[in-house]
Amino acid sequence: MGPTLEFWYEFASTYSYPAAARIEPLAAAAGVSVVWRPFLLGPIFARQGWSDSPFNIYPAKGQYMWRDLERLCAREGLPFRRPSAFPRNGLIAARIALIAAEEGWCGDFSRAVYRANFVADQDIADLRVLGAVIESLGRKPAPLFESAGAPAIKDKLRAQTEAAMSRGIFGAPSFVAGGELFWGNDRLEPAIEWAKELRAA
Amino acid sequence: MGPTLEFWYEFASTYSYPAAARIEPLAAAAGVSVVWRPFLLGPIFARQGWSDSPFNIYPAKGQYMWRDLERLCAREGLPFRRPSAFPRNGLIAARIALIAAEEGWCGDFSRAVYRANFVADQDIADLRVLGAVIESLGRKPAPLFESAGAPAIKDKLRAQTEAAMSRGIFGAPSFVAGGELFWGNDRLEPAIEWAKELRAA
Repeated sequence: MGPTLEFWYEFASTYSYPAAARIEPLAAAAGVSVVWRPFLLGPIFARQGWSDSPFNIYPAKGQYMWRDLERLCAREGLPFRRPSAFPRNGLIAARIALIAAEEGWCGDFSRAVYRANFVADQDIADLRVLGAVIESLGRKPAPLFESAGAPAIKDKLRAQTEAAMSRGIFGAPSFVAGGELFWGNDRLEPAIEWAKELRAA
Repeated sequence: MGPTLEFWYEFASTYSYPAAARIEPLAAAAGVSVVWRPFLLGPIFARQGWSDSPFNIYPAKGQYMWRDLERLCAREGLPFRRPSAFPRNGLIAARIALIAAEEGWCGDFSRAVYRANFVADQDIADLRVLGAVIESLGRKPAPLFESAGAPAIKDKLRAQTEAAMSRGIFGAPSFVAGGELFWGNDRLEPAIEWAKELRAA
């Protein structure tokens, strides 16, 4: 068992999009395995007194974020289109991602959901959009929607969000390696480096 | 006249410390000149409804920031000790920095103030601390304190903070090159790259 890096992300989170696109090749090159950990930011933001994204609450910060994201996607060669609605509700997508994580196709699913939101400008809360994403991966939507609505998966997502809080997570994307927390797409490389050095130690 | 990069910073700002330490060698290697622009975050935070640092208002974020700063200073080979008080008042230091910027010794002064705060754990609002910093640069404190208290410099700092807001600045450190805003110590390299490419264009 080699070193692992927990990747904590939320489908509404803008900077989680480039992180989800970049993490697997970078981790693989370092001999680090990625553990996909979808969670919800809403309950965490609510505890900080926010009922909306801080990028909407603080307009100067929001305006900067969109431009920064556009620049960094261009630099990374990632397609990007500013969505016409923000933030979009990633609840159902997160529940499906939990199932996908158990079954080993969470990376492909998550990247496809991010592209739907931040490239194709689609509403990822819409079951038709999620259905098309699931079909594009060669899977059947109906049984997944049924599982995603069952209490077991709902509880699991709640527990996952609680686990995020217990790790000190307050935003997304976040990375955890050996108890060390890293926050932000720009901390992906140091987080992988940290995971790699744990193995060497 | 080669390309320039505006460096907007505040003496209480934690991530401005590594940015101030790193900017000149990196910019020089890229053929970019640095324009030191001290300003105050207090009035900007007040407009966002904050009367304290967001790192104090949001404890999970604050706890993360101190650890992240410690790790990144270690990686950069920069000394760091978490100050016993945060944030410290950088008002007088910012006024002196404005004078130093006119006279061409702002980089040395600013780095020394950051070391006093984030390495020696000294109160940078204390004139004895600032006096020792100024003397360490071979200058006389008394005439500088007098100029720093004069209306011309007080007004200039107010205007500088207004100029920061007019550029869309909402935090520190920030960098501006050719009208493009970059926020955060981790955006120093892309900001320098942007300034460099403007020259090439």
